Amino acid sequence: MYKVDLNCDMGESFGLYTQGNDEEMMKYITSANIACGYHAGDPHVMRRTIELAKEHNVGIGVHPGFPDLLGFGRRHMKCTPQEVKDYVTYQIGALREFANVNDVKIQHCKPHGALFMKAMEDKQVARAILEAIHDVGSDMIVFSLNNSEFMEEAIKMGIPVAKEVYSDREHTENGSIVLTRTGTAITDYNAMADRVVRMIKENKVVTHDGKDASIEAETICIHGDTPGAPELAKAIIHALNENNIEIVPIKQII
Amino acid sequence: MYKVDLNCDMGESFGLYTQGNDEEMMKYITSANIACGYHAGDPHVMRRTIELAKEHNVGIGVHPGFPDLLGFGRRHMKCTPQEVKDYVTYQIGALREFANVNDVKIQHCKPHGALFMKAMEDKQVARAILEAIHDVGSDMIVFSLNNSEFMEEAIKMGIPVAKEVYSDREHTENGSIVLTRTGTAITDYNAMADRVVRMIKENKVVTHDGKDASIEAETICIHGDTPGAPELAKAIIHALNENNIEIVPIKQII
Amino acid sequence: MYKVDLNCDMGESFGLYTQGNDEEMMKYITSANIACGYHAGDPHVMRRTIELAKEHNVGIGVHPGFPDLLGFGRRHMKCTPQEVKDYVTYQIGALREFANVNDVKIQHCKPHGALFMKAMEDKQVARAILEAIHDVGSDMIVFSLNNSEFMEEAIKMGIPVAKEVYSDREHTENGSIVLTRTGTAITDYNAMADRVVRMIKENKVVTHDGKDASIEAETICIHGDTPGAPELAKAIIHALNENNIEIVPIKQII
Amino acid sequence: MYKVDLNCDMGESFGLYTQGNDEEMMKYITSANIACGYHAGDPHVMRRTIELAKEHNVGIGVHPGFPDLLGFGRRHMKCTPQEVKDYVTYQIGALREFANVNDVKIQHCKPHGALFMKAMEDKQVARAILEAIHDVGSDMIVFSLNNSEFMEEAIKMGIPVAKEVYSDREHTENGSIVLTRTGTAITDYNAMADRVVRMIKENKVVTHDGKDASIEAETICIHGDTPGAPELAKAIIHALNENNIEIVPIKQII
Repeated sequence: MYKVDLNCDMGESFGLYTQGNDEEMMKYITSANIACGYHAGDPHVMRRTIELAKEHNVGIGVHPGFPDLLGFGRRHMKCTPQEVKDYVTYQIGALREFANVNDVKIQHCKPHGALFMKAMEDKQVARAILEAIHDVGSDMIVFSLNNSEFMEEAIKMGIPVAKEVYSDREHTENGSIVLTRTGTAITDYNAMADRVVRMIKENKVVTHDGKDASIEAETICIHGDTPGAPELAKAIIHALNENNIEIVPIKQII
Repeated sequence: MYKVDLNCDMGESFGLYTQGNDEEMMKYITSANIACGYHAGDPHVMRRTIELAKEHNVGIGVHPGFPDLLGFGRRHMKCTPQEVKDYVTYQIGALREFANVNDVKIQHCKPHGALFMKAMEDKQVARAILEAIHDVGSDMIVFSLNNSEFMEEAIKMGIPVAKEVYSDREHTENGSIVLTRTGTAITDYNAMADRVVRMIKENKVVTHDGKDASIEAETICIHGDTPGAPELAKAIIHALNENNIEIVPIKQII
Repeated sequence: MYKVDLNCDMGESFGLYTQGNDEEMMKYITSANIACGYHAGDPHVMRRTIELAKEHNVGIGVHPGFPDLLGFGRRHMKCTPQEVKDYVTYQIGALREFANVNDVKIQHCKPHGALFMKAMEDKQVARAILEAIHDVGSDMIVFSLNNSEFMEEAIKMGIPVAKEVYSDREHTENGSIVLTRTGTAITDYNAMADRVVRMIKENKVVTHDGKDASIEAETICIHGDTPGAPELAKAIIHALNENNIEIVPIKQII
Repeated sequence: MYKVDLNCDMGESFGLYTQGNDEEMMKYITSANIACGYHAGDPHVMRRTIELAKEHNVGIGVHPGFPDLLGFGRRHMKCTPQEVKDYVTYQIGALREFANVNDVKIQHCKPHGALFMKAMEDKQVARAILEAIHDVGSDMIVFSLNNSEFMEEAIKMGIPVAKEVYSDREHTENGSIVLTRTGTAITDYNAMADRVVRMIKENKVVTHDGKDASIEAETICIHGDTPGAPELAKAIIHALNENNIEIVPIKQII
């Protein structure tokens, strides 16, 4: 039987500012990528998000980003590999403490925004993040786009990788994604759901430029700030059920 | 034989900004209070400071502060107890990860600046910090002024307390300190050293207003940014040696 | 004929985070208090908010706060008067430049949150803010609660003051307000509107503890983040119209 | 007679952190580039630096940078042109208010660090900065490396440009500079001074890779954080005097 994990960025509120709808989205997913106070999130939000994830039995992930709250971590910052490594170690530690206090473990790590995109294509940045994960001595899984430097380096270092696809972003031929701000956002929930099903069952996706590309999907990202995210989640879950694709924690897949 | 621990605030540099002289001061002390990125410090500085402390076999302490880099954590911020607790948990976690990566343990916690002073006199703030320390499940020692709410609450909660005195600040009758910015700074190193010796051997100190007060000294704070801090440290160490007071890690005292 | 000005906090979004509903609220008010990047707001938001205010012919106000984005400027920070003065000068300048670029003038200054509340009761903080306003050489009006230190000092310094009341907060006997987080929020729009009308026409208000107090109302604050703020604004405007109270720019009142 | 302006980055301290030696360097220069709270500086530091510049009759310049205190504005951040424009407008305004309060005018604008280097080579970033300068309606001069996009765009827009060279950085063949962190720093003060004299009198410089390149020098940058900066400044001033090169405000040169 086919299996897949559903992940969503969580804990992106900050102080009085609310972002996303964590209470609602937590019902639909199996993995939560939790911001750690650098690009979003704060200690209060981190604690509540971990409590919420635990309550819904959702896997907890570190979601480290660049130190750029003003840009929400979506702008590349030209940091040295050592800076990236130290920032990731710091963010892992901060989140781990809240997980520790709640008797849960960190399941995975998914870098955020510009740090994620850079890690996909830049071996040095990829290594910096992976070395932080390696050095903290955990058994975290990393989430990665298909065919990326990040995946390749993780495999070399013996860090388990979950291949990630996006429900609400267009893919390129090599498995990367096209950012909404420049690419076309997909807005038809059923089309998105069908696309996801095809990625899982046929390992195929139609790219942003109309080609048919190979792709593997072990975890599906749903953006919590995509308009109508809960409806998208429901449409995807419905389509997965219809197609006998089981939604399970990522640890049961890889 | 008399015993005492020497502590100093460390890791207060930030980015390109240097504060204190950690490389030099680390030679003289037995406990380092390391800033965690809120009032001072950054991930890079935290990592290097832990490495430096490990190299000199100095006990590692969390030094959490208010989120106020602009004010160096020296201005009181009216946070709720839950905010304080979450901020302390976050900072402990961030530092613990760097300690963990370097195979060292957190030995103690000393709140910084305005958070420290508030914790001494405000039971709610004291509890918030202590609950964070309790919940992370460590065996950290806390550093506290004599006769404070912080000490009293720590004792109630079964958290070990080290009684702290200051080499370079005036004390009040109940064991609190007078901040340099308002009180007179002590500038004669030998006078400071003699004063410290008397606190340890006779449990007495002359207060800022000329009274003779009782005080207990298990750890002595030397400020790294006091002008001539290394000379002050040397003068104190010399006086301690002359008086057969052994300088030992705080764990051997309490 | 009775006259009153309507004001609302504006430009409190930050980066990707949205706060309030500025596009909608701008239709109803005559004075906008615009955040300046310290407790909320950023350069992009400031520019757009000034453009929006200009488009709706709404008076532009500086809304300086403490440097505490994490606490939204609602937590008192124990700053020196000189720090407060410098922070206010900085924020005035930043907003004035965007006003200048759009060929509009700063009409008024209303401190935000904890800085506002402190300025009402602490003469030194009040003076610090007023000195910044005085020194920049403008003819800004300041908004102040009735019977405050801020009003008293402004009068001494010859800075014009508009007496402000709140539509959605309870008042105390001396004209101050009870913060929602501790006091009861008023939720009946018509009751709020009637209360406002009475303040303007009879100079009376029933306080949070049931007394009948004297109060003067030259400008009415409506919080943009009060649930249903646009409906509250409409209810107030309707009641003002029904009672022949003209809504005019504050400069036509004082 | 030959003429040249001397400029130095100033006001880069932050809170308790001190950077550079402004009191000393201000004696030697004719133009101060003052940080505005984004990559360095704070309102208190800005005020004091303007007061100090005024006292020494030094021209006041805006020194806007990326919002990256942790990286001291030395890391490129991939901002949109609109973001850059808004950030520059904000920083100009904040500094202008302190200048205004002290009855002095902003003389020039020199972007800082990574923003400066990007503006030299990227037409869009160059335009964004220049449009901010244009729109605030001042008659600011901009400082620019020889042969840059920034200079070219400024000329097109009618904004006066001062050609800048560095006393303590190697130059490339097209007039750009090699950052110390990667290139060799020049450490012989007399060699630096002779090099500066040759740039002014012969319009020639030996590049980092040993070529002889053409260059024009209207203002010379001395870094305040170069070790021994005051001695370098004195050596340069001595050499300029010896060679009958007058040190004058930039307005007398261009």
